[in-house]
Amino acid sequence: MKILRISMTDLSWREEGLKTEYAALGGRALTSRIIHDEVGGTVHPLGPYNKLVFANGVLTGSLASSAERVSVGGKSPLTGGIKESNSGGTAGIKQGKLGYRAIVFEGVRDDLQIIHISKDGVRFEPADWVCGKPLGETARLLEDKYGSHISYYVIGTSGEMRMNLAGIAIKDKDGSPTRFCGRGGLGAVAGAKGIKAIVLDDAGIDRLRPQKPEQFRAAVKKYTEWLQETPATAKVFPEYGTAALVRTTNKLGALPTFNFKTGSFDKYEEISGEKLRETILERGGEGTPTHACMPGCIIRCSNIYPDQTGATVTTPIEYENIGLLGSNLGIAHLDHIAELNRLCNEYGVDTIETGAVIGVLMEAGVLPFGDFEGARKLLEELNAGTPIGRIVGSGASVAGRVYGVYRVPTVKGQAMPAYDPRAIKGLGVTYATSPMGADHTAGQTIRAQIDHHKPEGQVELSIKAQEAAVLFDSLGLCFFSASAIAGRWSGIAEIVSAYVGTDVKEQELYDMAKETLRIEHAFNRAAGFTQADDRLPEHFYHEVNEASGTLFDVNEEEMLAIGVEGYK
Amino acid sequence: MKILRISMTDLSWREEGLKTEYAALGGRALTSRIIHDEVGGTVHPLGPYNKLVFANGVLTGSLASSAERVSVGGKSPLTGGIKESNSGGTAGIKQGKLGYRAIVFEGVRDDLQIIHISKDGVRFEPADWVCGKPLGETARLLEDKYGSHISYYVIGTSGEMRMNLAGIAIKDKDGSPTRFCGRGGLGAVAGAKGIKAIVLDDAGIDRLRPQKPEQFRAAVKKYTEWLQETPATAKVFPEYGTAALVRTTNKLGALPTFNFKTGSFDKYEEISGEKLRETILERGGEGTPTHACMPGCIIRCSNIYPDQTGATVTTPIEYENIGLLGSNLGIAHLDHIAELNRLCNEYGVDTIETGAVIGVLMEAGVLPFGDFEGARKLLEELNAGTPIGRIVGSGASVAGRVYGVYRVPTVKGQAMPAYDPRAIKGLGVTYATSPMGADHTAGQTIRAQIDHHKPEGQVELSIKAQEAAVLFDSLGLCFFSASAIAGRWSGIAEIVSAYVGTDVKEQELYDMAKETLRIEHAFNRAAGFTQADDRLPEHFYHEVNEASGTLFDVNEEEMLAIGVEGYK
Repeated sequence: MKILRISMTDLSWREEGLKTEYAALGGRALTSRIIHDEVGGTVHPLGPYNKLVFANGVLTGSLASSAERVSVGGKSPLTGGIKESNSGGTAGIKQGKLGYRAIVFEGVRDDLQIIHISKDGVRFEPADWVCGKPLGETARLLEDKYGSHISYYVIGTSGEMRMNLAGIAIKDKDGSPTRFCGRGGLGAVAGAKGIKAIVLDDAGIDRLRPQKPEQFRAAVKKYTEWLQETPATAKVFPEYGTAALVRTTNKLGALPTFNFKTGSFDKYEEISGEKLRETILERGGEGTPTHACMPGCIIRCSNIYPDQTGATVTTPIEYENIGLLGSNLGIAHLDHIAELNRLCNEYGVDTIETGAVIGVLMEAGVLPFGDFEGARKLLEELNAGTPIGRIVGSGASVAGRVYGVYRVPTVKGQAMPAYDPRAIKGLGVTYATSPMGADHTAGQTIRAQIDHHKPEGQVELSIKAQEAAVLFDSLGLCFFSASAIAGRWSGIAEIVSAYVGTDVKEQELYDMAKETLRIEHAFNRAAGFTQADDRLPEHFYHEVNEASGTLFDVNEEEMLAIGVEGYK
Repeated sequence: MKILRISMTDLSWREEGLKTEYAALGGRALTSRIIHDEVGGTVHPLGPYNKLVFANGVLTGSLASSAERVSVGGKSPLTGGIKESNSGGTAGIKQGKLGYRAIVFEGVRDDLQIIHISKDGVRFEPADWVCGKPLGETARLLEDKYGSHISYYVIGTSGEMRMNLAGIAIKDKDGSPTRFCGRGGLGAVAGAKGIKAIVLDDAGIDRLRPQKPEQFRAAVKKYTEWLQETPATAKVFPEYGTAALVRTTNKLGALPTFNFKTGSFDKYEEISGEKLRETILERGGEGTPTHACMPGCIIRCSNIYPDQTGATVTTPIEYENIGLLGSNLGIAHLDHIAELNRLCNEYGVDTIETGAVIGVLMEAGVLPFGDFEGARKLLEELNAGTPIGRIVGSGASVAGRVYGVYRVPTVKGQAMPAYDPRAIKGLGVTYATSPMGADHTAGQTIRAQIDHHKPEGQVELSIKAQEAAVLFDSLGLCFFSASAIAGRWSGIAEIVSAYVGTDVKEQELYDMAKETLRIEHAFNRAAGFTQADDRLPEHFYHEVNEASGTLFDVNEEEMLAIGVEGYK
C-alpha cells in the first residue's frame, strides 16, 4: 500500500511508501494523522496550506460485509477544526485496487480539474464540461467518457462554489452518485483545490486479496453470522432502514421539530419508517425498501424511493433526512422530504446541514415552518448561487449570524443531526465534546440501555461511543454493524490480522482509536479550540424541550474532561 | 455618580451607587470591568445573558477640550469577544448631568423601545414610529417629540435587524446623529435588547462642576495650551482632518487598495486630505473643512462635506472612510465616498466594516472593483434587509465565509481599518493582539518615529500604544489629543484629580490601563480565544504588498506575549 500525493497547484503527482508509523492506520485514523502531522492548526481551510486526504479503511477492499468505507479528511471550513467524513459506495474498493491507502491533495487552483487515476498513473483534465450540472448528469458524463467500470469522488455545484455545506459524492454500487462524505464542508475544500472529480479507473487491476485467505474466510464467516443473527442488522435495518428511528425518537421527545424547538412532531406517523416502507412497497417499480450501498453488504439499510409511477425519486431516505428535512421544518409528507433529499443529492450538499440551515431561516422568518415549496426554492437558489442560496450554502451557524438568530442548533459551527440533545443526553455530550462538532456518527448513544433523559452516566457512555466510532471509521466498517459486533472486537481483530497478514491485537485497535481522538483534539487546540467550544448552544441549557420535559444538564466538569482540553 | 440598571425583559429600572472598586473607572475601563464581572464568556451576544453598558469617561462632562467621549461595551456579535467602542458627540455630557457614570442594559425583548431618561426617572415607550427610517429622520422625530435640548443614543435599521456591522449613533453638537460607536456590532446587541433609542433629557439639571474648580481651571489651561502649540492639533487636524493621512499612507504603501491587495492607489490625489479641503472650500455653503463633534473641542478634526450647491451631504469624511470606502474599493471620487458615507450614517453602520465587506464581495466577483453604483446599491439592499443586504450587514468575515473567499482582511472577525499591516507593522501587531480585534484606535502606531516597514520594535511600540489607548478611552479623552499630551500624563492626572476631588497619581492611570487590558484578555480567554486568534489572516504572511515590498513578519513569540495568552 502506498500514498499518492497530488499537487493541484502545479498538477504534479508522486507516490510514497506508507511510513512505518502509518502502516496500521486507515480511514479516520489515517486522515487525522496526516492532517495533524502536515497541516498547521491556523491555516485557512480554503487556502493553499490545507490538505485533503482520501483514505481507505484498513479493511476497505476486503469485501467483508459493510467494510468498504472510505474517509475524507482536512481542516473544515465549517467548523474550523479537523474533520473526517466517511461514506460507503464503491470508491474505496477501487482506490484499494489502485494500491493507495491514501490520496493526499495539496495546493489550490482557480479552475476545476478531473483527476484520472489508473494503472498508467495520474492524468489531469479540465473539468468544465461536467461542471455546473446536477450530480446525476455529471456522473453519467463521467461514465460515458471513462467507462461504467470506474468509480469516483465528485463534488456538485455547491462544492464548485466552495460552500460550507458541500459534501463529496461517491458512486454507489448501482452507479448513482448518492453516497456522501457529507459533513464538514470538505466539498468546499475540494472545490478550492480545483478538484471537480477524481476518477478511479481500475481497468486491468486485480482485486485485493487477504494475506491469510483461510483465516480471513473463517473470521469473516463468524462476523457474517453475527450480522445475520442480530435483530437490528438482520431485520430492522433491512426492513425500515434508519427511518425505523422516527417512532423511537418521537416517543423520547428527541425528534427535532421546528428548528429543534421541541422533540416530537404531531404528524410523525406520516414520516415514520413504517410509512416509508409501506409507501415504497405500494408504489413498487424501481422502488425498494432495502438496498445495499456497497458491494457485499448484507445489512442493506439503504432504500430507493419511487414516485407514484414507480420511477426512482431519490436514494436513500434516511432517518437524518426525515428528521432534518421533515419534522425540523414542519414538513410532514414523504414525497416532499424525498424531493428535498433529491435536490440535496443533485447539488452535492449535506442533508443534515441543509435541513438545519433552512430551519434557522424559518426561525428568522425568511419563510414559514412547513413551507415545502419555499424550502425547495431555497435549494434551487443554492444551486444558482444567488445571495439567499449562498446563505443557505454557508450552513446553519453562518446563516444564523447573517440573520441575527439566537436559536441556532450547531456545535463548533456544525449542525446537530436529528436528535435533540436535551432528550438524548449522551448525544448531547458527543455533540459538545467530539473534535468533529455536532455529529451523531462521532459517538452515537441512542442504542444504549440508559435513561436518555437523565444526565447521569452520559459522559462515560459518550466517550466509549466516541472511541468506538473512531474504530469503525478507521477500519472502514459501517457503524451499523455495531449491534452485531457488540463486545466481540477480538473477532474483528482476527479479520484485520488475517487481511493485513500481521497479528493485530484487540487492544491495539482500542489504542489506535484513543490515539486518533488525542491527535484530533491536539489539532483543534492548535486551531484555537478551547473548552468554550465544548458546549451546546446556550438555549439548550435554559429552554425546556416540552416533548421530553428536559433541559441539557450534564455535569460540565465531567464533560470538559473528555473534550478538547481534557482528552490528552 | 451612580449606575442605572435597566432590564429590557420587564422594562424595569433601578439605581445603584458606584461600587468602591469602580469609583476611579470610566469609559472603557468601566464597561470592560462590568462586562468582565457580570457576563459569562460563552454567552450568546444577542441573547438574554449579554449586557450592554454605556459608560462615561472619567472626564466626560468636564468640558475640558476633546474630553467628552462615552464608551459602549458588551460581548460583540462580530468578534465573539469583549468589545468597547467609543465616540464623541453630546450624549456623554447629558448622561453625566443625569448622574450616571454608567447605564447597564440587561435582558432581551422582541419589540423596540425608546428609553427616556430624565430627572423624573426612566420611561419606556414603544419605538415603532421612529423605526425603519434613515437615522436623520429618526433623530428629527425624536427632537420634535422630546425637545431639541436632548441628546440620544440611537440605532439605525441595521441595528433593528441585528446586523453585525450596526453601530450606535450619538447626536453631535449641531444636532446630527453622525457620531458613532461604530465598531463591533454593538448596535445589534442594542437591537436584540429592544433598544431603539435612549433619550437623555437633561432639562432642569445643572452642568457638572469640578470638585476643585481652581486647580481644574489651571490644569485645563495648561492642557489647552499644549493643544494650541502642537502642530497636529493646532493645524493639521483642523485644516485637513484625519484625511491628511492619505498622502502619508499612500507613500508608505499602507493605503488599502483593492481589498488590501496592495498599499497604494494610483488615484490617491483625488481622495487626499488636500483635495478634500480644496473641494469643501470651493463649494462653500454649509460645507466646512473644520468642525467640532463635541462642545468645547478645539481640535475640530471633523468636517461637513457639501454637494455642488453647498448643501450638506455628510459629516464627517474621515481618513478611514476614504481608505475603506475609497481606495479599498477602487473608488476615486470624493463625491462617491461622501455618498457611501452618508448612507452608512443613515443606516447606522460602521464605515470601516462596510468598506471591508464590500471589498470582500468585490474580491468574490459579486461586483467589480471601482463600481460605485454597485456599492451604493449594496447599502440600499442592506437597508431593505434583502439577502445580499444581510450578507453585507454581517460584516467582512461572515461574508467571506458565505462566498468562500480566501483573502478576508479581518482579525477576530473584525475588519481592519485603513492601514495595511504589512506596511505599518506596529498596527499589524495591534490588529493581531488587541482584545478588540483589528482596530487602529486600540493601539495606533503610525505617528511613532520608527521604520514602519521593519519588524523590529513593533511589539513594544504596539503594547505601549494599546495601553495608552485604554487610558484615552477610559478618561473620555479623544485620542487626537495624543500628540499634544505626548509624555505629559502628569498634567492629565492633575486635571483628573481636580475634577474628581481625590488625588489621582499618574501611575494609577497607567495601572488602570494595564488592568483593563488584563481583564479584557481574561474575558476573551473565557470566551474561547487563544493565541490562534492573535494572528493576521494567512495571506498577509505570504503575499507581498507590492507598494511597500513587504510581508508581515513580526516575531510571533514576541507578539503572543502581549496577546490573549500572554498579557496576564
